Amino acid sequence: TADLRSDTLTRPTDAMREAMAWAPVGDDVYGEDPTILALQSQVAELLGHEDALFTPSGSMANQLGVRLHVAPGQELIADDLAHVLRAEMGAAAVLSGISARSWHANAGLLDVDAAMALAVTDGGAYQVGTSCVVVENTHNFGGGTVQPLEAMRELHRRAHERGMAVHLDGARLWNAHVATGVPLADYAACADTVSVCLSKGLGAPVGSLLVGSRAHMEQARVWRKRFGGGMRQAGILAAAGQFALEHQLERLADDHERCQRVARAVAATRGDAVDPAAVHTNILVLHVAPAGWSASDFIAATGERGVLGYAMGPEHVRFVWHLDVDDAQTDHAAAVLTDLVSQQA
Amino acid sequence: TADLRSDTLTRPTDAMREAMAWAPVGDDVYGEDPTILALQSQVAELLGHEDALFTPSGSMANQLGVRLHVAPGQELIADDLAHVLRAEMGAAAVLSGISARSWHANAGLLDVDAAMALAVTDGGAYQVGTSCVVVENTHNFGGGTVQPLEAMRELHRRAHERGMAVHLDGARLWNAHVATGVPLADYAACADTVSVCLSKGLGAPVGSLLVGSRAHMEQARVWRKRFGGGMRQAGILAAAGQFALEHQLERLADDHERCQRVARAVAATRGDAVDPAAVHTNILVLHVAPAGWSASDFIAATGERGVLGYAMGPEHVRFVWHLDVDDAQTDHAAAVLTDLVSQQA
Amino acid sequence: TADLRSDTLTRPTDAMREAMAWAPVGDDVYGEDPTILALQSQVAELLGHEDALFTPSGSMANQLGVRLHVAPGQELIADDLAHVLRAEMGAAAVLSGISARSWHANAGLLDVDAAMALAVTDGGAYQVGTSCVVVENTHNFGGGTVQPLEAMRELHRRAHERGMAVHLDGARLWNAHVATGVPLADYAACADTVSVCLSKGLGAPVGSLLVGSRAHMEQARVWRKRFGGGMRQAGILAAAGQFALEHQLERLADDHERCQRVARAVAATRGDAVDPAAVHTNILVLHVAPAGWSASDFIAATGERGVLGYAMGPEHVRFVWHLDVDDAQTDHAAAVLTDLVSQQA
Amino acid sequence: TADLRSDTLTRPTDAMREAMAWAPVGDDVYGEDPTILALQSQVAELLGHEDALFTPSGSMANQLGVRLHVAPGQELIADDLAHVLRAEMGAAAVLSGISARSWHANAGLLDVDAAMALAVTDGGAYQVGTSCVVVENTHNFGGGTVQPLEAMRELHRRAHERGMAVHLDGARLWNAHVATGVPLADYAACADTVSVCLSKGLGAPVGSLLVGSRAHMEQARVWRKRFGGGMRQAGILAAAGQFALEHQLERLADDHERCQRVARAVAATRGDAVDPAAVHTNILVLHVAPAGWSASDFIAATGERGVLGYAMGPEHVRFVWHLDVDDAQTDHAAAVLTDLVSQQA
Ligand SMILES: [Ca+2]
Ligand SMILES: [Ca+2]
Ligand SMILES: [Ca+2]
Ligand SMILES: [Ca+2]
Ligand SMILES: [Ca+2]
Ligand SMILES: [Ca+2]
Repeated sequence: TADLRSDTLTRPTDAMREAMAWAPVGDDVYGEDPTILALQSQVAELLGHEDALFTPSGSMANQLGVRLHVAPGQELIADDLAHVLRAEMGAAAVLSGISARSWHANAGLLDVDAAMALAVTDGGAYQVGTSCVVVENTHNFGGGTVQPLEAMRELHRRAHERGMAVHLDGARLWNAHVATGVPLADYAACADTVSVCLSKGLGAPVGSLLVGSRAHMEQARVWRKRFGGGMRQAGILAAAGQFALEHQLERLADDHERCQRVARAVAATRGDAVDPAAVHTNILVLHVAPAGWSASDFIAATGERGVLGYAMGPEHVRFVWHLDVDDAQTDHAAAVLTDLVSQQA
Repeated sequence: TADLRSDTLTRPTDAMREAMAWAPVGDDVYGEDPTILALQSQVAELLGHEDALFTPSGSMANQLGVRLHVAPGQELIADDLAHVLRAEMGAAAVLSGISARSWHANAGLLDVDAAMALAVTDGGAYQVGTSCVVVENTHNFGGGTVQPLEAMRELHRRAHERGMAVHLDGARLWNAHVATGVPLADYAACADTVSVCLSKGLGAPVGSLLVGSRAHMEQARVWRKRFGGGMRQAGILAAAGQFALEHQLERLADDHERCQRVARAVAATRGDAVDPAAVHTNILVLHVAPAGWSASDFIAATGERGVLGYAMGPEHVRFVWHLDVDDAQTDHAAAVLTDLVSQQA
Repeated sequence: TADLRSDTLTRPTDAMREAMAWAPVGDDVYGEDPTILALQSQVAELLGHEDALFTPSGSMANQLGVRLHVAPGQELIADDLAHVLRAEMGAAAVLSGISARSWHANAGLLDVDAAMALAVTDGGAYQVGTSCVVVENTHNFGGGTVQPLEAMRELHRRAHERGMAVHLDGARLWNAHVATGVPLADYAACADTVSVCLSKGLGAPVGSLLVGSRAHMEQARVWRKRFGGGMRQAGILAAAGQFALEHQLERLADDHERCQRVARAVAATRGDAVDPAAVHTNILVLHVAPAGWSASDFIAATGERGVLGYAMGPEHVRFVWHLDVDDAQTDHAAAVLTDLVSQQA
Repeated sequence: TADLRSDTLTRPTDAMREAMAWAPVGDDVYGEDPTILALQSQVAELLGHEDALFTPSGSMANQLGVRLHVAPGQELIADDLAHVLRAEMGAAAVLSGISARSWHANAGLLDVDAAMALAVTDGGAYQVGTSCVVVENTHNFGGGTVQPLEAMRELHRRAHERGMAVHLDGARLWNAHVATGVPLADYAACADTVSVCLSKGLGAPVGSLLVGSRAHMEQARVWRKRFGGGMRQAGILAAAGQFALEHQLERLADDHERCQRVARAVAATRGDAVDPAAVHTNILVLHVAPAGWSASDFIAATGERGVLGYAMGPEHVRFVWHLDVDDAQTDHAAAVLTDLVSQQA
């Protein structure tokens, strides 16, 4: 079976488990876990920000980030497929009283003009003020698309000119970096805060980090406790992150290559299902409606043949490559997907 | 001076003041104010719903409406100029933990396909579910535009098919009714809850109502108290509403005619400032950028010549007709606006 | 019938109605209603604070006050019968994310040591910090009891020493002032913000005010809009407040005298039902359990004989004197209550 | 050094680390982590409830529990030292809009009459309704005190009679069980939901569980994701919990014995500092004010001599025994504390 439902499925390797087992730990709620402190420093430095904070999930890292920038009753804006609006269960409104509006973006790709046109920064006391723009790179529901660095720079500049902060949802920023060779810090320089996840392509079992200024991280630490994210001897988890950054970052290129290979195979069979040029990293989204399939039927059919994926709405399906998927599984997936799209459902 | 900043500026006439002065009253927090009860019944009947609830503001009526339909952590969707998202200070997130996304709509006009494409109703336990679509008719920031009844009916049908409620922000539904002749109840039949305002074109000093089912109004009454909107002998205010419905509803046609007259005058001078066919009711939005004006400079210039308006963002200005603006003031406004758009700023 | 359920039941007199009818008005959301502005100035001056803000209810005035002092995730403390905790529907938590704890107070009377012992002002980043103490004067569920000025001064001093603000719920501060002769400003000097109600003993139909510093009132104005409390030509309501302050303030003494008279009559019959010395103003609470009554049965029995009251929990009943209760109704109430407490239920 | 600041400081032993390293894992956000599932079943069974849910912290377990029982705008009640009100950063208000009041309890010991007197269950539409009573056993800020089973049973019965739920904050329920021999399930039968912590005395690095009905746990799973507590391959952490339950539960008796030994030593020197009979488990609270010490000076003094503790307010200090404190450290602590309390500061 090829389990391509998500790259969150990655499991720790034996070597990673060894690293975790013997990590020095302390009480991180008191800021005394040495492995957590080391990982936070390492990730802050990688991303070129002052400090970092470990969190139990990417959602919590994002929610802490936007909390720092947007007061209750103010607004964030994001594209209408953004994870922070679509897949975090309304947390920004519930936890922080943050209002939101969204612009439409094809394949999640950043449209700076649309974002700037949506923002309201002169609303005075009678309109909601837009305090923060969220960008997601790579973009999950957009199909793993990479945001161009130039667009991110322009967004950052124009947002700051109008007094808005930028939060980068970088759950898969690692994939953008590996796909393009752009240094992580160059992307991260386009945002006031950045979240990154250890538990997706990197292959760690649990954990994300928020990075930003020292003052912001101090505030975020208090809010992390309030959100219930204060963990004690979390160094066990951080050790997996250290291991992943050393040993499992560059290999994301293999996931991208495998995903691209399947995209090309499917496109060769049925060009309206996917454009390989739009498959930037490890996520393959197929449009199965033109072939007469509903998303749920298609996923059921692939599942019967040992290829697990995810229905994204009624017409699209998603397959995600990761550490636990090898070449043989990839070949099998290519065969199954190619075969199914070429059938009329 | 012609004060065209907003139709909320309307002041009670002497006859309305007499009606208010002698209204029978009781304690409405206990549900014992006879004038409130009578107005609630009258408006519920006009709109063809079971019951109604009086509120101190249109914002509170809208916020009670969406509260009924959307649980904390769930989502409402609306167009990106909607009053409920733009001008209610993020209340849905703050008061009710309601998340939001928006579709883009030209002049606020309802795009049912865009709304339906945005909604997520199959997200399961991992995505925010869209529980409510908000429609605004007439649309304030859209320029007083009237939503076609057919579009509202289609929205209502398709939303219900997918398990979503519809809330109609009908602050100026009176204007839509007078402009088109469509019965109020026909519009209101396209929504589960409807808010209407007494204090805008109708000319009452204070008050709005929410209408909907009896069960919904009972819940809304409790939440009204929680929001701080429980008023005691509010019948004084309701009497103004009764008076306005009897004496000041049909005259909205005068506001529309005056507004249209000025739209035509401006368009005759400078066709890129406004399309009179897009001016449906009492709100005139001019695009002043093509004439070289910034919105704020233009408003300053009209103000110096006794015509008060409102800058809507950097390039547009708004002028609103209402009870306290007569033909002479309208002629003056037409002269000033025509003159200014024909100058290069 | 003597309707003694609450002093919120007061209805405007003819003279007050005349004053309301002809009040000059403007759009108060824009800060342009002259009668609102005049009333706000008058009340601010009466209470010795910089500025005031009109609100549709006492709950909203209280909720704006505590919002100013307590950030989300911080705490207010109050006695366990306080209106702000018991009768405002959990609004502080819902609207502002404010946590709370309570101290126990006999008859609502302020126990400064208990309040100070409860407060946590050295909790650092691991405990909730107490940001505000709320005092209620007179105390509604405490039975209209007056807080001693010295206790209020001590609370204010000790709270400020520890960095906490004080909010005074002065819905019935007028009654305290009339009962004791202590100037309103002396009470109000013991708090950072004060709410007062026009619609209870003062007899206005609708409205309350929050007073405090100019900076606080500016913030409160924005939050009032967010809470849905922005009203347009609210000067109609403010005129009733002006009238009440001029003509109906000193007469609260009559309510106090009548309430005391009934307290004495009941106590003469049955000393365990009430201690007249604990009846400070216009609220009479009787302990009916010793006479064998349940509160609800007792209220049913008085109601059958034309005396309406309110069951406060299982053993106590409440009767409130106000503008619309005269000597004859008072005599009748005394007869009925005396008779019923002397019967075994 | 004896680090007695908290039992959260416990670090995993080598044997526990081995167990963690080789735990089978899956994606727990999808409910597919076998070790998480096994631990949840084990703890649910131990506590006699249908199901359990793993969380990153005890705060999150408590917050999910109260969320299930209390709708926004309703109320929970707890004693005024309760962790849920004092040490969870106001989370119930922020995350769930839950209002609160508190009763006073000596040493945190449950006073059922006080709790029942505080609850309001007949408030109708005008008062906050009390939906949940929270009990903490053992009681942290009360000094590790054990709640008598009979009191808990009475509370449960009387709360249910009045329509209220009971949530048991059982972060240290293990200690109560070991101290008294009362089965865990007997305590847990007195509550609708129970939280327990693995990372305190039990010695696991991270994790807590909420237990309750299957329907409640399903809801809690959705809210856990919203709160940012969804972790992926969390089985690594659950394996530590399994190990702790097998190997490190009964040894809590050693902590209790050591703590009691020090309590007696101190009391023998200075009887007003502590009553050994009130020291039930692993937490020693000393009243140092009678000896002339401030809490912060005392903690500084013990710290200089290698005994780390925690200042609880201005007059009390806390020392907590746990897995990483042995007999020698205990003897040293006894010597230091005895010496210091016998000095005049
Ligand atoms: Ca994310
Ligand atoms: Ca993983
Ligand atoms: Ca008006
Ligand atoms: Ca009050
Ligand atoms: Ca009244
Ligand atoms: Ca631990």
